Amino acid sequence: MEDSVSVGLLGVGVVGSGVIDLIEQHQAKLAHQLGCNVHVKSALVRNPNKARDVDAKTNGTLLTTNSDDVLNDPEIDVIVEVMGGIEEARESILKAFKAKKHVVTANKDLVALYGAELHEAAAENRCDFYYEASVAGGIPILRGITDGFASDHIEQLMGIVNGTTNYILTKMHNEGVGYEEALKEAQDLGFAEADPAADVEGLDAARKMAILGRLAFSTHIDLADVEVTGINGIDLIDLQYGDNLGFTMKLIGFAKFDGKQVEVNVQPALISKDHPLSDVKNEYNAVYVYGEAVGEAMFYGAGAGSMPTAAAVISDVVAVIKNMHRGVTGSQFVEPRFEKELKTEAQRFGQYYVRFYAKDEAGVFSRISSLFNEFDISFKQILQNPLKDADAAEIVVITHKSSLEKMHQALEALSKLDEVIDTKSFYKVEGDAEE
Amino acid sequence: MEDSVSVGLLGVGVVGSGVIDLIEQHQAKLAHQLGCNVHVKSALVRNPNKARDVDAKTNGTLLTTNSDDVLNDPEIDVIVEVMGGIEEARESILKAFKAKKHVVTANKDLVALYGAELHEAAAENRCDFYYEASVAGGIPILRGITDGFASDHIEQLMGIVNGTTNYILTKMHNEGVGYEEALKEAQDLGFAEADPAADVEGLDAARKMAILGRLAFSTHIDLADVEVTGINGIDLIDLQYGDNLGFTMKLIGFAKFDGKQVEVNVQPALISKDHPLSDVKNEYNAVYVYGEAVGEAMFYGAGAGSMPTAAAVISDVVAVIKNMHRGVTGSQFVEPRFEKELKTEAQRFGQYYVRFYAKDEAGVFSRISSLFNEFDISFKQILQNPLKDADAAEIVVITHKSSLEKMHQALEALSKLDEVIDTKSFYKVEGDAEE
Repeated sequence: MEDSVSVGLLGVGVVGSGVIDLIEQHQAKLAHQLGCNVHVKSALVRNPNKARDVDAKTNGTLLTTNSDDVLNDPEIDVIVEVMGGIEEARESILKAFKAKKHVVTANKDLVALYGAELHEAAAENRCDFYYEASVAGGIPILRGITDGFASDHIEQLMGIVNGTTNYILTKMHNEGVGYEEALKEAQDLGFAEADPAADVEGLDAARKMAILGRLAFSTHIDLADVEVTGINGIDLIDLQYGDNLGFTMKLIGFAKFDGKQVEVNVQPALISKDHPLSDVKNEYNAVYVYGEAVGEAMFYGAGAGSMPTAAAVISDVVAVIKNMHRGVTGSQFVEPRFEKELKTEAQRFGQYYVRFYAKDEAGVFSRISSLFNEFDISFKQILQNPLKDADAAEIVVITHKSSLEKMHQALEALSKLDEVIDTKSFYKVEGDAEE
Repeated sequence: MEDSVSVGLLGVGVVGSGVIDLIEQHQAKLAHQLGCNVHVKSALVRNPNKARDVDAKTNGTLLTTNSDDVLNDPEIDVIVEVMGGIEEARESILKAFKAKKHVVTANKDLVALYGAELHEAAAENRCDFYYEASVAGGIPILRGITDGFASDHIEQLMGIVNGTTNYILTKMHNEGVGYEEALKEAQDLGFAEADPAADVEGLDAARKMAILGRLAFSTHIDLADVEVTGINGIDLIDLQYGDNLGFTMKLIGFAKFDGKQVEVNVQPALISKDHPLSDVKNEYNAVYVYGEAVGEAMFYGAGAGSMPTAAAVISDVVAVIKNMHRGVTGSQFVEPRFEKELKTEAQRFGQYYVRFYAKDEAGVFSRISSLFNEFDISFKQILQNPLKDADAAEIVVITHKSSLEKMHQALEALSKLDEVIDTKSFYKVEGDAEE
């Protein structure tokens, strides 16, 4: 057994700095678990002279602009990729595998897009490839799914996997402010980026759901398979009506698998207040897993941040070093068992929330209700309020379960009804225990 | 690699039946992960003819009353102990290790009492010893702690680790019924045993906290080190006052470690409604982990039940078989790093809830408040109500942080104060964010 394992770092931003810091701080714990020291030998950076949170040099880490100093150093066994971005990261990781180095990454964009290719390259070179930090930062959810549910059939995942959008929705809910104002506050406090598109449009959550779905269901899920609706354009009134009816609005990643067909999507949804996900507030993340045997389980924690992400990265480094010592690297990957088959809208069932404006005339509600009945959809909860300064009413309904196809057909028919002025919003409803 | 791994079962009660069932149902998933089949070859039972949930014989499992058929069958590599009890289970497991068989158990009583001895026997024989199912049933919390937090310093655990007491407290809270009535209902519904002592007196939770603390802090924690107060004798009025003040009563297992000293205890405590543990309802369990780097993380799920527990047992069997294939059994155990040193009451700090009766005279509250101040304790929240038909008042206070030693001294002094009629209750308060 070596006295020390050398790690090469690609990128020394906030996460990379955290990795250097934590490895330094926890030498004793790491040495106790592993029987050897761990050392970040060199790190690829764009500018070695830039001011950084961590003084890499005092830790004896070489900062270099030459990737060969990291990827082709024969003393380095494990590469940690925390540079972000796609193309350069992908090439570097493929190069690392060719040089028979194990790779740990926190790069969800890359894993969501090129996970299959990278796994294949890892297997070919008998290298380890781990990416616990890519989903929900400090929450050990990927290990939880693959190891904890090893003997169970995972039927469904529901995740709040984007901290920015959860922060914005919590703000809107607690303070009764609109989307734009909540976004601005999130930006001011550093919970949202100057360009928040990837978060608020749901793409970031979609990447994580592709990774989670692939591991949970053992089938290839491409990012393109994930249907995405963001929270941009969400109306405060729908959060408030939802609240009155017993639901909290969350951006939810869904992934379902019935043993044959999968369904993966990200969308704002109204979660019953009885469901634990409705209590996940601010920038926190949580993943709810429904296992056939285990029943319901939830993993909750900080979804991002330098230290939680760095800790997840190092937990992977520990796993790799244990595998190295045992001589079993490259063996952890299991090929997907199932061919992917996506559910159609006719095969997707759920409860829905619809808000629309209708003329305030006798018999209108009965006609609307009959229209939905024609599509086998009935209402579970109804709210009706007169619209100010108009001879019209605002109507909110929550339906019993129906297929998404019939729901779309009903909404189409609803919009053509003379009595209906405008359909304002449409959301999925989840966690209603009686359904 | 073998075509099939044979498992021997000790006990075919509800969990054992679940193990047979699940292994049968998930043959394809297990074979895919492991590259071999898994088969329960024989099972030790007291009475082979007893009616059981599972038809073991149709699964080809031999039911036997002779333990040698299980423990000394050379074809059997893995022993699953789900018979419960202490002495016979302990002897059987020690015998299994001597016969070089790996052991998986769901027996928290045994692991809490004899964990160190059993780990030692496993290591001597280079065998695996896993017990994920012993704490919080279907929640993969032990793996979460050991693998997920591998590079982090775990500072504190708080757990709702007993479903029976959580069910009773939820019932009292939601329906405003007293302890005795809630207990009876829990018994009627099968959530509490006819003799509920081990649950309601906190011993079951204490066993789990000893196991959790040992793994989280890498130090030997004996069951005797765990200070225990149960929920029996809890007064509904304290739940209700707590509720009014923004707290929910839960039976909480605490384990803290500052890098040097530990503190482990189980007690009813008032948890801030802002804390995720306050939302864990009914028979559900959850463990909240505070890692220095990861921050706060929570693992939530079904804490008991035949299938969740069986699924956790099989996740351990899967881990053992993977280790067998890789030739690395017996290597997962890491000796504790730290000598145990328990915190004294002077070193334990917290917020507290105190309820007492006092004479309803001018200046009484000011004298009480001065008394606490003498022990450096100040009040954060105060409630005072007149007592019906008495010239007295009921006073409830929640303190700012103080040492437990000073708190006990203050309570002692309080009871001697002429103006104080009786101290009714005293609870720890947790999760108050401002403190």
